[in-house]
Amino acid sequence: MAEKIVIALGGNALQSGKADPTAEAQLEVVKKTCQHIAEISCKGYEIGLVHGNGPQVGRILLASEAAKDVTPAMPFDVCGAMSQGYIGYHLQQALKFALAERGKNIPVLTIVTQMVVDKEDKGFKNPTKPIGPFYTEEEAKELEATKGYSMKEDAGRGYRRVVASPIPTEIMEIDAVKALWDSSIVISCGGGGIPVVRNVDGSLDGVAAVIDKDFAAELLAEQVDADVLMILTEVEKVAINFNKPDQKDLGELTIAEAEKYIAEGHFAPGSMLPKVEAALKFVKANPEKKAIITALDKAVDALEGKTGTVIKAK
Amino acid sequence: MAEKIVIALGGNALQSGKADPTAEAQLEVVKKTCQHIAEISCKGYEIGLVHGNGPQVGRILLASEAAKDVTPAMPFDVCGAMSQGYIGYHLQQALKFALAERGKNIPVLTIVTQMVVDKEDKGFKNPTKPIGPFYTEEEAKELEATKGYSMKEDAGRGYRRVVASPIPTEIMEIDAVKALWDSSIVISCGGGGIPVVRNVDGSLDGVAAVIDKDFAAELLAEQVDADVLMILTEVEKVAINFNKPDQKDLGELTIAEAEKYIAEGHFAPGSMLPKVEAALKFVKANPEKKAIITALDKAVDALEGKTGTVIKAK
Repeated sequence: MAEKIVIALGGNALQSGKADPTAEAQLEVVKKTCQHIAEISCKGYEIGLVHGNGPQVGRILLASEAAKDVTPAMPFDVCGAMSQGYIGYHLQQALKFALAERGKNIPVLTIVTQMVVDKEDKGFKNPTKPIGPFYTEEEAKELEATKGYSMKEDAGRGYRRVVASPIPTEIMEIDAVKALWDSSIVISCGGGGIPVVRNVDGSLDGVAAVIDKDFAAELLAEQVDADVLMILTEVEKVAINFNKPDQKDLGELTIAEAEKYIAEGHFAPGSMLPKVEAALKFVKANPEKKAIITALDKAVDALEGKTGTVIKAK
Repeated sequence: MAEKIVIALGGNALQSGKADPTAEAQLEVVKKTCQHIAEISCKGYEIGLVHGNGPQVGRILLASEAAKDVTPAMPFDVCGAMSQGYIGYHLQQALKFALAERGKNIPVLTIVTQMVVDKEDKGFKNPTKPIGPFYTEEEAKELEATKGYSMKEDAGRGYRRVVASPIPTEIMEIDAVKALWDSSIVISCGGGGIPVVRNVDGSLDGVAAVIDKDFAAELLAEQVDADVLMILTEVEKVAINFNKPDQKDLGELTIAEAEKYIAEGHFAPGSMLPKVEAALKFVKANPEKKAIITALDKAVDALEGKTGTVIKAK
């Protein structure tokens, strides 16, 4: 049986940095990324993809807000849905071709994915994730009063809307992902999934929130019974004392070690911390399995045990 | 064996008219639409959905162009991909609930769909489909020179970009739609699909074009071997002498009759004409099958032979 791997792609896999934020430049980066992903697939692994959407949904929201006198601004959940269409389209187009170049013909497709979050998630009580443009204090107060937004002052640069970053509990379209897994490469849970809450009558409502894509990938990996949760980022290995003279790269990490390092504050919130936390969650739920954190261009080597940080139960 | 039906949803199924173009108002319309779609599914038919995206992609493009000094404008193919995410999300959320209310639990999902068109399609030689905002003559000339757009004067209101409306030849993600058909309700080919052309090396490039959603639904119906292509619109039946004193609603239409009426100019281009043409294409390719054109709220009755216009080979 081929090993099943859920791959979480970070921002660097999807965009060319601040120099050129156009969709055209992004597509060029996605094409390079898909060369690496195709390599993994052609090694015989069964893969599914999850991607982030931070910069992309940020630009969609920015355009939507900037143009609001011309056409109504989009709710944030719809912006997320749009980013899934946009990024998924680029990935499926580029990956299909990268595979074809290697003689592999397999369907590659994107499923628009809703992710259920708990209305009572503690993230909703103290939203911290800034999204969209900056506003003046006056505008911020107006938005709080008229739209019920939570607004926070952001490091002297003005006010921004902040939303919750809840933990996902259910992938609405999981049956389809499972049904296609054996025959296809499925891109799902893009941007962490479109966050929805379940009402008493069972209906869903989109909410303004950002689900961390690493936690989305973790839930997906559990539900498709993946052997490996692979989180691809900019560094080859997780490190303690990162960027200090005594930085130490880690080849392996047990649950106990990871929890100790987290408590000691070694991993940056919003950056390495959620990756390590998602990896931990996966191996706690599946002690016989493993998570890997490494760089995109080291993914195959890491799967072959040559590099990367492997997170195991013990 | 349940009858297989590909349903094409028109603009009136997705939006609340010009009075309220917000995404929130659209969702309310989509919820009502999904009550009708759920009825069809609960009658035992196997269905797949295709939807239009004209007003939605228009607004995405408008916002993108209006905000271009803040964040780079999106290419038109990416706008199409975003509209698939946006509309698909609303449809899958609302339809899943409308089915659950009727005690039916079945996966409902959207597949981001690329549609191959021929580079040599005659539509590209004389683009006619206006998209996006109006420009002055000077701006129009600038866009022609710098971006290679085709710009046309639009009824004295200014200049607009015009793009091709090519015939689709291939659905890139058809294998996934087929694989899921028996177990799920799949929303695909949204807005006619994201138009792509195939290069000599086999890679795909998105192009600025609008594929008619009725022709997209027709191709899908052929490829999933549907029994019925059902095109839902604002009228219960196709009519000749439409809106004239001698208007005559048609209960049945053969290929020969339809071709005669088309030649006589009974059907409006961009409105009823593509619907009748798509229906014709389907029954020509599948003479033992039928196409139905009717209103959303008459769909079940039409499937039971009580109303609508049935297009048959003879």
